[in-house]
Amino acid sequence: MATAGKVIKCKAAVAWEPNKPLVIEEIEVAPPQKDEIRVKVVATGLCHTDLYHLFEGKEGFPTVLGHEGAGVVESVGPGVTEFKPGDKVIPLCASQCNECRFCKSSKTNLCEKSWSTNPCPTMAGPVTRFSCHGQPVLQFACTSTFSEYTVMNKIDLAKIHDDAQLDRVCLLACGVSTGYGAAINSAKVQPGSVCAVFGLGAVGLAAVMGCKSAGASRIIAVDINEEKFEKAKIFGATDFVNPKAHKKPISDVLIEMTDGGVDYSLECVGNVELMRSALESCVKGWGVSVIVGYTDLHDFAARPIQLIAGRTWTGSLLGGYKMKDDVPKLVLDHIAGRIKLDEFVTHTMNLEQINDAIELMKSGKCIRTIINMSK
Amino acid sequence: MATAGKVIKCKAAVAWEPNKPLVIEEIEVAPPQKDEIRVKVVATGLCHTDLYHLFEGKEGFPTVLGHEGAGVVESVGPGVTEFKPGDKVIPLCASQCNECRFCKSSKTNLCEKSWSTNPCPTMAGPVTRFSCHGQPVLQFACTSTFSEYTVMNKIDLAKIHDDAQLDRVCLLACGVSTGYGAAINSAKVQPGSVCAVFGLGAVGLAAVMGCKSAGASRIIAVDINEEKFEKAKIFGATDFVNPKAHKKPISDVLIEMTDGGVDYSLECVGNVELMRSALESCVKGWGVSVIVGYTDLHDFAARPIQLIAGRTWTGSLLGGYKMKDDVPKLVLDHIAGRIKLDEFVTHTMNLEQINDAIELMKSGKCIRTIINMSK
Ligand SMILES: NC(=O)c1ccc[n+]([C@@H]2O[C@H](COP(=O)([O-])OP(=O)(O)OC[C@H]3O[C@@H](n4cnc5c(N)ncnc54)[C@H](O)[C@@H]3O)[C@@H](O)[C@H]2O)c1
Ligand SMILES: NC(=O)c1ccc[n+]([C@@H]2O[C@H](COP(=O)([O-])OP(=O)(O)OC[C@H]3O[C@@H](n4cnc5c(N)ncnc54)[C@H](O)[C@@H]3O)[C@@H](O)[C@H]2O)c1
Ligand SMILES: [Zn+2]
Ligand SMILES: [Zn+2]
Ligand SMILES: [Zn+2]
Ligand SMILES: [Zn+2]
Repeated sequence: MATAGKVIKCKAAVAWEPNKPLVIEEIEVAPPQKDEIRVKVVATGLCHTDLYHLFEGKEGFPTVLGHEGAGVVESVGPGVTEFKPGDKVIPLCASQCNECRFCKSSKTNLCEKSWSTNPCPTMAGPVTRFSCHGQPVLQFACTSTFSEYTVMNKIDLAKIHDDAQLDRVCLLACGVSTGYGAAINSAKVQPGSVCAVFGLGAVGLAAVMGCKSAGASRIIAVDINEEKFEKAKIFGATDFVNPKAHKKPISDVLIEMTDGGVDYSLECVGNVELMRSALESCVKGWGVSVIVGYTDLHDFAARPIQLIAGRTWTGSLLGGYKMKDDVPKLVLDHIAGRIKLDEFVTHTMNLEQINDAIELMKSGKCIRTIINMSK
Repeated sequence: MATAGKVIKCKAAVAWEPNKPLVIEEIEVAPPQKDEIRVKVVATGLCHTDLYHLFEGKEGFPTVLGHEGAGVVESVGPGVTEFKPGDKVIPLCASQCNECRFCKSSKTNLCEKSWSTNPCPTMAGPVTRFSCHGQPVLQFACTSTFSEYTVMNKIDLAKIHDDAQLDRVCLLACGVSTGYGAAINSAKVQPGSVCAVFGLGAVGLAAVMGCKSAGASRIIAVDINEEKFEKAKIFGATDFVNPKAHKKPISDVLIEMTDGGVDYSLECVGNVELMRSALESCVKGWGVSVIVGYTDLHDFAARPIQLIAGRTWTGSLLGGYKMKDDVPKLVLDHIAGRIKLDEFVTHTMNLEQINDAIELMKSGKCIRTIINMSK
């Protein structure tokens, strides 16, 4: 393309400081260096994890958030043979280098080179290809999809099928893969089992879809916002519980409903008290509870007998998927109709409206808002 | 036998109240009722769980403690065909009814009829066959082996091979089976893996033996009492760490020693801070930590990222063994030399010396004291 090798000036939503509205700025995006690819972002979702980093402000600023995007390769740096301009791609917020001991193990989707295994979730090292008003702007989660253009290493990019609908498959970059895989890969839901999903955002709804796809016989959808129940039904939930409608602890409610507790529970909110409830809702003997929601502000806790009595507590990062290998397969699953994506999208906006999208998520009035970059 | 059908007067160590020395009393042991067996206890170990119940006093008193015994059938009640007088047996502190949904599942060793799944760990219901000075005395954990005779339901008794050495296989009633099975069945230690065992009492040493038997390449033994290290070596430990000898948190020490953390850790102390350390000592991606030590006084806790990064926290009750089925097999393993038992026994005493045995365990100067009832 005509822009190859040159700095691109484009629009991006810059987070200058924690807990403040994003600012639409013209930024400069440097050309990709060795092993890097510059991507024109076509569409991006907004995930609760973006909000978490914006509000808690634990990472570096200024930064460009966004990690649920899809786009097209604009140009490639030296040494890149796997991608060419025009390829449809999904930037990955978890690396897959295929060389480290984690990548070589079938037991995990962690990668030693991934930002999520490092303390500071910015582009590997203090490296960024973004600047604004002459000042470097950090990249978040190696992706930074709230920008018309972004740059990442080849270990952070997946090539996907040409038929992929970019303003839908962007959801496979995080939220939907996370919930779906948390049920299938992390909980390993078995056919005929009884499941409970706590929190019915995109992650929780995708977990419901994963439980359904794994053959669960009963899926209890739990949320304090009853407006979410209708969607949960579409994805396969069979029972609906609002904890606020009960005087008893929610775990007692679930234990009574299921004659002893559920086989699998998934916490998709990021609330440590709810993590405990999710564990305590599991049947003793074999109940498995998966922590999917994220928070780093508090400890989760329980009494030892909860585990000694045979329960297992585990967690899920991006649904356990090795993203570079698996996201392209999930895209094919969507094309083949095995994974729903349309049903997650409640709003479509353009980049200028990003702060409205953030407010919408805070208010609980949306599932996913898709930011369409070309509008 | 001549005593069949009659009340037996015999010696027992009665715990009249929490946190007081046991008192050797003459008690009356009623004949076994329907589905029950009266057992002459030949030998019994003393497990830390007995101390816990004595000192924390959460269960009913007066009671006769002891749940790590072996003996011989004295007489059987109506409906019992599986046992006959003279059979060598091990009283079980976890029931196996073979009828409930837990017993029917291969995923767990819990039983709905077991005391350990009920709030009050005495004989099922308020039932006891013991009395002393005309007052009922509770049975602890369905076993009460600190008595020359005891009575239990057939779901709480395992028949073992005639060649079994009763003053050794009694350890398979709890401590040794627990640690050994925690490594093999609960952690599911894989060949070549790196393990850490926290706490080197009989339970921890048996866990070391289990890791070794499962093919672990490296077994790190952790205890604040360095006198335990010599024994740990006999059972297969390769590395020895005293947390008190380090300024850094023990998890940091283990992470450094193992270049990222151990594959499996087992907490065999019953200390919630150590449970956290054991989890945090595990490698991300696939590390599994098993809670074996027991306490109901505090919560265990950790940060969500510990699990989201791919670790799993679980627990083990009696090593995951279905006791009625598996204890007889473990006895055969001992007879065949596949399981060490002699090495756990540091002291032998008679019932009159039981308070000395308790002091010895509190002081950390023993591994297991065997109380020989016929002495
Ligand atoms: N582990 C991972 O790899 C990973 C990936 C993506 C997102 N996440 C995390 O997953 C969580 C969910 O993300 P999302 O985008 O779906 O968020 P979201 O805000 O769209 O949805 C959260 C839902 O939880 C519900 N909720 C809040 N408090 C509740 C309570 N006490 N009980 C029951 N329901 C409650 C809300 O009503 C809402 O429906 C976040 O914590 C996010 O950071 C984790
Ligand atoms: N889960 C089960 O089914 C089950 C069964 C039996 C026993 N238990 C529990 O297992 C635990 C161990 O039992 P045991 O009979 O082997 O006890 P024990 O008292 O013989 O051994 C405990 C060991 O832990 C060590 N220790 C204490 N504090 C420590 C610390 N901070 N760091 C490292 N080591 C420390 C002691 O020095 C001692 O060697 C107890 O909590 C007991 O209740 C559980
Ligand atoms: Zn890697
Ligand atoms: Zn996300
Ligand atoms: Zn015990
Ligand atoms: Zn049963």
